Amino acid sequence: MTDHLATATEVAEALRADAAERDRANRPPLPEIDLLRSSGLLGLPPDDHVGTHAVTRVIAAADASIGHLLGYHYLHLWRFGLFDNHEATARIRRGTVENGWFWGGASNPGDVLTVTPSGGRLLLSGRRPFATGAAVADRLIVNATRTDNGDRLTLDVDAHHPGVHHPDDWDNSGQRLTASGSVVFTDVPVEPDQVVGVLPPADDPRMVRLVLSSIGYQSMLAQVCVALAEGALAEAAKYTRTKSRPWGTSGVDQAVQDPYVLAGYGEAVAETRAAALMVDAGVSALQAASDLGPAITPELRGETGIVVSTAKVVATGVANRVTARAFDFIGARATTSALGFDRFWRNARTLTLHDPVVYKAKEVGAHYLTGELPTPTAYS
Amino acid sequence: MTDHLATATEVAEALRADAAERDRANRPPLPEIDLLRSSGLLGLPPDDHVGTHAVTRVIAAADASIGHLLGYHYLHLWRFGLFDNHEATARIRRGTVENGWFWGGASNPGDVLTVTPSGGRLLLSGRRPFATGAAVADRLIVNATRTDNGDRLTLDVDAHHPGVHHPDDWDNSGQRLTASGSVVFTDVPVEPDQVVGVLPPADDPRMVRLVLSSIGYQSMLAQVCVALAEGALAEAAKYTRTKSRPWGTSGVDQAVQDPYVLAGYGEAVAETRAAALMVDAGVSALQAASDLGPAITPELRGETGIVVSTAKVVATGVANRVTARAFDFIGARATTSALGFDRFWRNARTLTLHDPVVYKAKEVGAHYLTGELPTPTAYS
Amino acid sequence: MTDHLATATEVAEALRADAAERDRANRPPLPEIDLLRSSGLLGLPPDDHVGTHAVTRVIAAADASIGHLLGYHYLHLWRFGLFDNHEATARIRRGTVENGWFWGGASNPGDVLTVTPSGGRLLLSGRRPFATGAAVADRLIVNATRTDNGDRLTLDVDAHHPGVHHPDDWDNSGQRLTASGSVVFTDVPVEPDQVVGVLPPADDPRMVRLVLSSIGYQSMLAQVCVALAEGALAEAAKYTRTKSRPWGTSGVDQAVQDPYVLAGYGEAVAETRAAALMVDAGVSALQAASDLGPAITPELRGETGIVVSTAKVVATGVANRVTARAFDFIGARATTSALGFDRFWRNARTLTLHDPVVYKAKEVGAHYLTGELPTPTAYS
Amino acid sequence: MTDHLATATEVAEALRADAAERDRANRPPLPEIDLLRSSGLLGLPPDDHVGTHAVTRVIAAADASIGHLLGYHYLHLWRFGLFDNHEATARIRRGTVENGWFWGGASNPGDVLTVTPSGGRLLLSGRRPFATGAAVADRLIVNATRTDNGDRLTLDVDAHHPGVHHPDDWDNSGQRLTASGSVVFTDVPVEPDQVVGVLPPADDPRMVRLVLSSIGYQSMLAQVCVALAEGALAEAAKYTRTKSRPWGTSGVDQAVQDPYVLAGYGEAVAETRAAALMVDAGVSALQAASDLGPAITPELRGETGIVVSTAKVVATGVANRVTARAFDFIGARATTSALGFDRFWRNARTLTLHDPVVYKAKEVGAHYLTGELPTPTAYS
Repeated sequence: MTDHLATATEVAEALRADAAERDRANRPPLPEIDLLRSSGLLGLPPDDHVGTHAVTRVIAAADASIGHLLGYHYLHLWRFGLFDNHEATARIRRGTVENGWFWGGASNPGDVLTVTPSGGRLLLSGRRPFATGAAVADRLIVNATRTDNGDRLTLDVDAHHPGVHHPDDWDNSGQRLTASGSVVFTDVPVEPDQVVGVLPPADDPRMVRLVLSSIGYQSMLAQVCVALAEGALAEAAKYTRTKSRPWGTSGVDQAVQDPYVLAGYGEAVAETRAAALMVDAGVSALQAASDLGPAITPELRGETGIVVSTAKVVATGVANRVTARAFDFIGARATTSALGFDRFWRNARTLTLHDPVVYKAKEVGAHYLTGELPTPTAYS
Repeated sequence: MTDHLATATEVAEALRADAAERDRANRPPLPEIDLLRSSGLLGLPPDDHVGTHAVTRVIAAADASIGHLLGYHYLHLWRFGLFDNHEATARIRRGTVENGWFWGGASNPGDVLTVTPSGGRLLLSGRRPFATGAAVADRLIVNATRTDNGDRLTLDVDAHHPGVHHPDDWDNSGQRLTASGSVVFTDVPVEPDQVVGVLPPADDPRMVRLVLSSIGYQSMLAQVCVALAEGALAEAAKYTRTKSRPWGTSGVDQAVQDPYVLAGYGEAVAETRAAALMVDAGVSALQAASDLGPAITPELRGETGIVVSTAKVVATGVANRVTARAFDFIGARATTSALGFDRFWRNARTLTLHDPVVYKAKEVGAHYLTGELPTPTAYS
Repeated sequence: MTDHLATATEVAEALRADAAERDRANRPPLPEIDLLRSSGLLGLPPDDHVGTHAVTRVIAAADASIGHLLGYHYLHLWRFGLFDNHEATARIRRGTVENGWFWGGASNPGDVLTVTPSGGRLLLSGRRPFATGAAVADRLIVNATRTDNGDRLTLDVDAHHPGVHHPDDWDNSGQRLTASGSVVFTDVPVEPDQVVGVLPPADDPRMVRLVLSSIGYQSMLAQVCVALAEGALAEAAKYTRTKSRPWGTSGVDQAVQDPYVLAGYGEAVAETRAAALMVDAGVSALQAASDLGPAITPELRGETGIVVSTAKVVATGVANRVTARAFDFIGARATTSALGFDRFWRNARTLTLHDPVVYKAKEVGAHYLTGELPTPTAYS
Repeated sequence: MTDHLATATEVAEALRADAAERDRANRPPLPEIDLLRSSGLLGLPPDDHVGTHAVTRVIAAADASIGHLLGYHYLHLWRFGLFDNHEATARIRRGTVENGWFWGGASNPGDVLTVTPSGGRLLLSGRRPFATGAAVADRLIVNATRTDNGDRLTLDVDAHHPGVHHPDDWDNSGQRLTASGSVVFTDVPVEPDQVVGVLPPADDPRMVRLVLSSIGYQSMLAQVCVALAEGALAEAAKYTRTKSRPWGTSGVDQAVQDPYVLAGYGEAVAETRAAALMVDAGVSALQAASDLGPAITPELRGETGIVVSTAKVVATGVANRVTARAFDFIGARATTSALGFDRFWRNARTLTLHDPVVYKAKEVGAHYLTGELPTPTAYS
């Protein structure tokens, strides 16, 4: 991993340099994806959750949107593999490494995407309102329902096909560069070998493993939260050291000597570090569950989900608090749009609304009190 | 006041209608000032702090930038009166009522503005880096130092004179429409009757009353904080009622039935109401101190400052917390730029950095422990 | 009121002098009740909620148990009056003024107290598990159900009758001196004129006024919360001024100069003051509703309840936080049992569990969102 | 470690059974020390910080006073070893294993303990105001200054010698059973081989290792904080499951179904787990620094201190918050003295005042901002 982390650190430096400017410009993050592509980071093994999470944290601290896209890219690839369709998985991963494919997804619950058989292949149609990264992806993981037999399929789809349309309707106050707007499919052809798997019924034992993916996405969101706190603190510290002025009645000569600034940083750093360790524990649990392959049980899946939900509860609070509080350490002059320091909070606040964290806390509490495990859903 | 509050409510409705859009567009708030002008609100008696604060709260809940500008406008006018230069005060107030002048200020500490005698009048020159509202003002209250004798003068200046230049350098992440950029004066003529007063030395008894103005500005900042929390809650509630969807595992049919949403609103409403009462107490103290006129003592001024600082400590926390937390009540779909709901938090976070609130808390604590009164400064 | 507040201040001084010691000794608060009796404070007009609350705050800041008992005493007396049984009310109030009766209560919901007709009078029997102040009361307000016709009566009962037994089963970690253990009645005779009223059915319009009493008790609990925060801060400040030592690396000579101590006090004082104003607003609303007499409507009752619940939400948080945090201002040496400074927190934590405050927040939130008014219960 | 943890779990069960009762009785914890002695836990290798901390956490969750005593016992033993006086160390550790010695300490800064040479040995005299565990110890680690040459010695002292007197002046609101009162020495003889080491001057390189002990004690305090939160949650959960009643308007049948109770537990569990991981990270850093032996550098010592201070900042907040909030999960009936649930908070609040945590936060902040390392003291 050391090499990959070094690469990630370099990419992060490049992203950090103009992160505020790119956030303001709000253009599709194609150059950013190119940067990831040329770095080779898109090709890391997606089953190595510890590795991909570590890389994601580094990237997301510099640019949380790009970190989010990268983290999801890894999870999409991993998710294909959960069907044990070895041929498809091998082809997809090889293609990713060789071609630097960036993966987006269109597979959340409530999709009304359909595939209709037509001359030996399927035609994919429909609209999905939120599809993170789809507008800048090379390939897409798509869940769709067959119109003839109701099967729910997981597909590998070419994002560049002319039948794939992105209405450019993502204009958000946070995570602006995640290209998370809608995607519309119009008779996009899907060949048989692009059908990676058929989702079994909810009570089928194979679903235990397949819905492990929900926990993966939750873990990644928690990871980006930690990265946001770390990124905000790092940028604030640089500002405090180089630009902040001591307050008139503080009695000190430099902002880095102000007792309130010092203790404020200390408290924020401490809660960020604790959250990072908790998220690491979630990643380790995810790795262990993922490594079990088909041997995973509903109980182990549930326990894994509880560790990750615990991490998400902690990381959510920390991301929201630290990105807001860091402003106190840098002062009024740091509120210019040019500095764009508010992007950390806007990103945190947007990301932490993905699904309401209080329901994660409820899950953790129920498990602590009664041992109850969360019902598998797209969010747990 | 009832009539003025009714007028303010109407103006607020108009401002609320496109507040998010205007925040995004980030244009000089000239139409907004016109709206205030035509409503007659600019002409309220500036010594009636209870009245002007009440109007400001209503306006600021709809648009915190415009509320901020209006609140400062009143304080600038009141501040002229503290010199007991009745002729000038009468002329200024009459001109304001008759012409609908909007007042901005360029008088913070550390100014390097100078006036140089030249043929029976003075020529004002220099640059002031932050001058809230100056770019859209008709008239300015300006502090400047005479180059010949070092006298510090408070001046009534025509903002439309060609020697007054605004570099349009305000582009901020919050309070975007306060037109708070720099102002440059180049040989702007100031007639003798535009010199409203000469600031006495810091230890002159008359300064006790003159520096009451610092407390006025602090009180107004606290008022806008309360308005921000109220405005965010009102807009969030409308959204929760009409657009939010209940969470999948909540077991309720509507977002307004979710137990966490309900208790969340209750806690936020409660702390906002308590802060509003505390700010009201600050305004009452300011009114009483202001009503004393020259009879005010250093002790009474200090005690007034403590009440207002107490209000500011409470209001600062509430504004930052409530504007952030309200997102939890409306959910992920509410993070679109079109809704622009993040403006409440961006405004709060910017406003609450005006001066570091922990030093206000320190003042309040020192007074509680030892009876110590804050040293008069531009911020206390 | 000025005289009563002066008296209350004197009584408070006496109570404060040995409050920690009495808390430890945990004896029935008979001497404390005697102190209240001899001061004349028991005889204040119970319809003057503003007055009785103000006196209660002063007493409760010195000794929260005794303040709690006194506040309830006033409410019990007021509650009798809600039946418009003028003769009984006059007799009860006259007796209270003339004899210095201290009133306790045994009337919470779920009571299984019964009265059985027997020779022209009623015999009261049964057990009530929690009866604040009953063990040290002269007279009791009791709710009981007639065994023959199911009528629910509100009675004026002689607490000294030998059929009234107190098992001395109150040993609590907080509010230790409230004598809130169980009370057992065994054939206690109740004459016809001791039946102050018959509770109508829940949907009878007269119940609107009668259940205003629930709101009165809630308001009083909020008042004691504020008093606890005020009392803890006052005692802490005395300690910081006279006994605390500056921390070794603080760089200051006295604890009252430590920047963290100063800002800590400032923040705690500020939130306590805001809570006090919010509770005052609740008391004013209660007073207005009480003054309406039979003219009160369900809507006005509900709105009053919302203001008081808002106050309770704020005061609960403040009491718990401030009584805990104040320890930081006085340091490790202040944790001795002799000082007993933990009694403020133990009292706050116990008092704030009387009924779960999150359900009050839920009420306030529901009202804010939809205008819904709380269903009248013994707690709302 | 598995065996030791199993033993610790058994001892903890025994301590938990009557922890509330023993807290109330407030007797010297001699039976508790006997329990530790007979379990063999006193003899664990004191250089295995990971092991001793793990055992301490288990014991402290059941009884924080006893956990505190045990944790300090291990550190005292380890501290002797830092002098590299192998003979003394071997004798002391052998004696501890063979005789089940329990160690207390009298060595904080500011001691005015002296040793005077007298006929080939030293006579120890003086008073130390706070000496955790000394009153129930078999042996003491004592720092004292030679009257003839000013050398500061670290001594192994027989706590049962008649010249060692304990005035029984520890009566505290928290950590009641830590026997932390004063100790008085009157001509207690100290043989040459009981002088384990001579403290070099502060700037001597050997001091780097010797003052690593301060960091050990800080780490142990953080460990007990985590244990307090864990202990409170475990006891609360048992109560919620078996005794708490659902609130009347909650709409659920059991307290374990209340949405606020569930989310409350979830949040408290999550922050406790994160703090536990942070404290574990501190212990690992301590272990690594300790394992370096004389090779430790000032930089490594300082970095270790920062990790442990970070842990302490987090653990302090969690202990105070969770032990207070857990009351909300169990309700009003849980405030009886018989249950004694407030002991968790009283212990936490007392323990977290040992030294002011805000100065730890300041250290962490200074290090983050500028790389500054804390000056070695008895607390850092």
